[in-house]
Amino acid sequence: MTKTNLHQKLVQKIEAGLTANDLPSSPKTLYEPYSYAISVGGKRIRPVLTLIACGLCDGAVDEALPAALAVEILHNFTLVHDDIMDSADTRRGKPSVYKKWNENIAILSGDAMFADAYKKLNFYGQSDHFSKEEFSAIHSVFTDAVITVCEGQALDMEFVDRKEVSHDEYLKMIAGKTAALLSCALELGAIAAHATPNKRKQLHNLGYEMGLAFQIQDDLLDATADPEKFGKRPGGDIFEGKKTYLTILALERANADQTKLIESTLNAKDPDPDHVNEVISVMKELDVLHDIAEEVDQHYQKALDLLEKFNPSDYKKELEKLLIFLRNRDH
Amino acid sequence: MTKTNLHQKLVQKIEAGLTANDLPSSPKTLYEPYSYAISVGGKRIRPVLTLIACGLCDGAVDEALPAALAVEILHNFTLVHDDIMDSADTRRGKPSVYKKWNENIAILSGDAMFADAYKKLNFYGQSDHFSKEEFSAIHSVFTDAVITVCEGQALDMEFVDRKEVSHDEYLKMIAGKTAALLSCALELGAIAAHATPNKRKQLHNLGYEMGLAFQIQDDLLDATADPEKFGKRPGGDIFEGKKTYLTILALERANADQTKLIESTLNAKDPDPDHVNEVISVMKELDVLHDIAEEVDQHYQKALDLLEKFNPSDYKKELEKLLIFLRNRDH
Repeated sequence: MTKTNLHQKLVQKIEAGLTANDLPSSPKTLYEPYSYAISVGGKRIRPVLTLIACGLCDGAVDEALPAALAVEILHNFTLVHDDIMDSADTRRGKPSVYKKWNENIAILSGDAMFADAYKKLNFYGQSDHFSKEEFSAIHSVFTDAVITVCEGQALDMEFVDRKEVSHDEYLKMIAGKTAALLSCALELGAIAAHATPNKRKQLHNLGYEMGLAFQIQDDLLDATADPEKFGKRPGGDIFEGKKTYLTILALERANADQTKLIESTLNAKDPDPDHVNEVISVMKELDVLHDIAEEVDQHYQKALDLLEKFNPSDYKKELEKLLIFLRNRDH
Repeated sequence: MTKTNLHQKLVQKIEAGLTANDLPSSPKTLYEPYSYAISVGGKRIRPVLTLIACGLCDGAVDEALPAALAVEILHNFTLVHDDIMDSADTRRGKPSVYKKWNENIAILSGDAMFADAYKKLNFYGQSDHFSKEEFSAIHSVFTDAVITVCEGQALDMEFVDRKEVSHDEYLKMIAGKTAALLSCALELGAIAAHATPNKRKQLHNLGYEMGLAFQIQDDLLDATADPEKFGKRPGGDIFEGKKTYLTILALERANADQTKLIESTLNAKDPDPDHVNEVISVMKELDVLHDIAEEVDQHYQKALDLLEKFNPSDYKKELEKLLIFLRNRDH
C-alpha cells in the first residue's frame, strides 16, 4: 500500500511518542529488553488505528496519543510473552526477547511493559479534558481487551492438543487473538475524541469485523496465495498439521474418505506434498475455499458499512483505503 | 499471633470477595490455574492491610474491598510468575502453578490475573462515591507499585550473577520486592477512605518501613533464629550462597582474611558447616548481627511512630498489634 501523507504523519507521531517514553536505565535486564521489543517495530497499525478513530470522530488526534502508545506497548508485551509460549526464536527477522536474553527476563520485562501501558492511560485520569466516565471507559475497554486476548491465546494453545475444534470455538479464538485489540484500539480513539456511546460501539464493531476478516483471510491465503508473493509454500499450515478455519470447515463437510485423507495428512510427521495438494483440492470441491473467501469479503463489507456512517474526512478516507487494500490483498 | 475478632472479620471479607469473583469456566487452562493460585491462599496480609488502612482513616471498610482484592490478586500473580523464574516447585506446601500445569500456562494465567486485578479497580471508576482524582490516584498508585515490584525482582535476578552488590542496591531490591506492595496496599485503603494526601503519604511510608523491617529481619533470622522454630537450618542462606543483607554488610566491614572466609564459603558448592558457623561468628564480631537487629528495630519504630498520628480506633490497635508481633518474632 502506498502510504499517504496522513498515514506517514500518524506513524511519525507514534514513533516520536515511543521515543519520548523515557525508560530508566536500571535495572538493565528489565528496561533493555523492553526498549528492544518496542524498537524492533512493526507497522504500528494498532496505534495508527487509535489516532484514525479519534480523527474520524472529529477529535483532537494528539489527545489519543497516550492511548495509542498504551495499545502499542500492550501489543508488544503480548508478543514478548507469546514468543516464549510458541518457542519463536525470531520476531520481525530479529531474535525474540526470550532468545536474545532468556525466558525469565522475557517474562519479567513483559510484565513491566504491561504495567507501563497502564501508566500511559493515566494521562486520561490526570487531564482536565476527560471526564471520570471517559477515564473509566478507557480503563475498562483496555482491561477487557487484555483479558480477551489472554483467552484467545489460551484457546489457541488448547486447540493444539484437542482432537476436535468447532467452527464457533475457532472464531472465538481468533476474535480474542486478533480482533479484540483492533476493537480496543479503535474504541479508545473514539473515547479520546469524546465520541457518543453509539460511535464508540460502531468503531468497536468495525475493529471486530476487520480483525476476523484479516485472520480468516490469513488462513485462506495459506492455501490459495501465490507462494512467491506469500513467502511460504502453499498449504504450509497443512504441512505443519495446524488446525485452521479451512481444515475445521472442511472436516465439518467431508465424507468418510475425505475425512480420512485430511486427518492423516494433518497428523503425518512429514506429509507427502501430493496429499497436501489433494487436501486443497477437497477443500475446493467442498466449496470451503469459495465460502471462506465470501465470508472474508462479508466481514470487510460490514467494516466498510460501519465506516460509511461517519462524516467525510481524511481519516475516513484513510481507513477506507486500508480496508480496501486488505480486502484485495493476495498475500 | 492470636487473631482478634476484627482480624478474623477482615479475613472473612477478603475470602468472601475472592469467592464471589466469579471466573468463567472456559478457557480451562486460563481460569483453573488462576482459581488454584488464589485458593492456595496464604494469610491475606496485604488485602487485610488495605481494609485496616481504610478503617484507620475512618472510611467505610467495604468500599476498600475491591482495592484489597486487586492487591491480593496482583500479589498472587507475582508469585505465579516468580515461581517460574525461581524454578520453585512448591508454594505454601502445594505444587506451584508452573509445576502443576506448565510454564506456558503459568505465564498466561498470570497475565490474566494481572489484568483481572485492574478490572477490580474499575469499581472506583464506576462508583459515584469516588472522584476522578481518587480513581486516578488508585490507578496510579497501583501501577507504580507493579513497576517497582518488577524492578525489585529484576534486581534480585541480576544480583545472583553479580560479584558485588552494595548496601543501597540491596535495600532498593527489597524495597521493590516486599515494601512496594505493602505501601500500595495501605495507600489504596487510605484513598478508599477519602483520606487527605498527608494521611495517604503517611500510610505509604508506614508500608515502606514495615516492608523493609520485615525483609531485613528475614535475612537476620536466617542466622540467628532457633532452627526448630524457623523451620530451616541456621545459616541456610549462607549454605545456599545467597547474597543477603548480612553478607553484604559483613563484606563491607571484613578484613582480607574474613573476606576470604566469607567469599569461599558462599562460593562453595557444598560448604563445610564449620565454615558456615565461622562466617556467623565473624558477623557477630563485626557487629553485623547487632547493627542489623538495631536497623530492623528502627524501621519498626518508624512504622509505629507513623501509626501514632492516627486517631484511636480498633483498626489502629490492630495494626499496632501486628507491628509489635512482627517486631518481636523470633522465627
